[in-house]
Amino acid sequence: MPRYALKVEYDGAPFAGWQRQAEQPSVQGAIEAALARLEPGPHKIAAAGRTDAGVHGLAQVAHCDLVKDWDPFKLMGALNYHLKPAPVAVVACAPVAEDWHARFSAVERRYLFRLLMRRAPETLEAGRVWRVPQRLDVEAMRDGARHLLGKHDFTTFRSSICQAKSPIKTLDALEIEEVAGLGGPELRFHLRARSFLHNQVRSIVGTLERVGAGSWAPEDVKTALEAKDRAACGPVCPPQGLYLAGVGYPQDPFS
Amino acid sequence: MPRYALKVEYDGAPFAGWQRQAEQPSVQGAIEAALARLEPGPHKIAAAGRTDAGVHGLAQVAHCDLVKDWDPFKLMGALNYHLKPAPVAVVACAPVAEDWHARFSAVERRYLFRLLMRRAPETLEAGRVWRVPQRLDVEAMRDGARHLLGKHDFTTFRSSICQAKSPIKTLDALEIEEVAGLGGPELRFHLRARSFLHNQVRSIVGTLERVGAGSWAPEDVKTALEAKDRAACGPVCPPQGLYLAGVGYPQDPFS
Repeated sequence: MPRYALKVEYDGAPFAGWQRQAEQPSVQGAIEAALARLEPGPHKIAAAGRTDAGVHGLAQVAHCDLVKDWDPFKLMGALNYHLKPAPVAVVACAPVAEDWHARFSAVERRYLFRLLMRRAPETLEAGRVWRVPQRLDVEAMRDGARHLLGKHDFTTFRSSICQAKSPIKTLDALEIEEVAGLGGPELRFHLRARSFLHNQVRSIVGTLERVGAGSWAPEDVKTALEAKDRAACGPVCPPQGLYLAGVGYPQDPFS
Repeated sequence: MPRYALKVEYDGAPFAGWQRQAEQPSVQGAIEAALARLEPGPHKIAAAGRTDAGVHGLAQVAHCDLVKDWDPFKLMGALNYHLKPAPVAVVACAPVAEDWHARFSAVERRYLFRLLMRRAPETLEAGRVWRVPQRLDVEAMRDGARHLLGKHDFTTFRSSICQAKSPIKTLDALEIEEVAGLGGPELRFHLRARSFLHNQVRSIVGTLERVGAGSWAPEDVKTALEAKDRAACGPVCPPQGLYLAGVGYPQDPFS
């Protein structure tokens, strides 16, 4: 059966997360239902990252198997037609080898986290950012972030329900960009790793926010990491500022 | 009575426009209802620009009169508290002279229009941009835009229901910026004038899109302008990409 890689964008707000669930709307469920309008199912798709409820996708990658040989451009259009009105869109589509796997072939995940610094409630950016009411000390946050780069036991920054076999991960990048957003001054966190633990990004951003607010010293991040204890983590920040921004493969199937 | 200037941000999607209407939700109505929670009304506020249905405000400016001497910071917080859950927020508040008027004291309006160039339907940016399915020729659009700068009779680019006394306006700036948005390549149109005619921005952007798509030559914009005929205008583009981005006063009340 021909296999296709799909690059998927979605608004996480109305979904219980990526993963199909019996009684709740999911992004996976929406795409599988659209596939069933093209070819009789059941369809079972796999994705590079199973995002939580409220977390968005800018460039999630999934793969599907179909009977017919589809022109990728037509497949993309047909899926988008049947996905409406769900806030999910296939933004790229490409044929891949039958042993190519959206999750297991991936060698890199990139996440974006958007933090809006202002007192007034957000309107146009509601559900798109985490708003904190005060300005944060970005340089202190960058100092704190440096302790997390590289290979570490990230037990402190891992959800208690995380199913990964090992808490040891290598964080390849953690950059904090200052942006003049439409809604005001934003911090954009760019994180990159081969893979992440459950809640790792939100645990890191929530902890660095404490550094930016002055409650934690930058070196406290190192102490927390070295404690290898979930209780040493700062508050986990909410999901709506988080975006799965990209997935890397040895060869980009969409290029 | 003490008068206060309010800088207001809103998502235009759920509103029939800025202006209060008997049976439909309006931004003005939402703010006046919030004011009535602070001091008995009726309240009647005035704004620098009466945005249409679906058009957003990033920095609309209005003024209100209250009996009590409010601390501006507390007034902003109280209004935002009572505005919830409407997607309207007061992002700045300042006391002004009793003869200061949000509309009549204004000497400049700035609009932003966001155009997203991609084939797939928008998800996270739905209701925030005008999506066109193909790449546009930005240099041709800039060439076309140059004909509109300065003082002209803008009859061609004016809605047939426009109530302005004269169709003569001076367009002080029309810049087209290319931005790598979260949803893909965006064109951001920045327009600045003392005041605008009804539908002027949407008529201009819709016409320039035709230039970018190659249907019109840049010089056709000059011909259309000189026709002084509404029928010579390109298609008026939809409202959801339009933002009232700022209002200028001889002295900024919020600085």
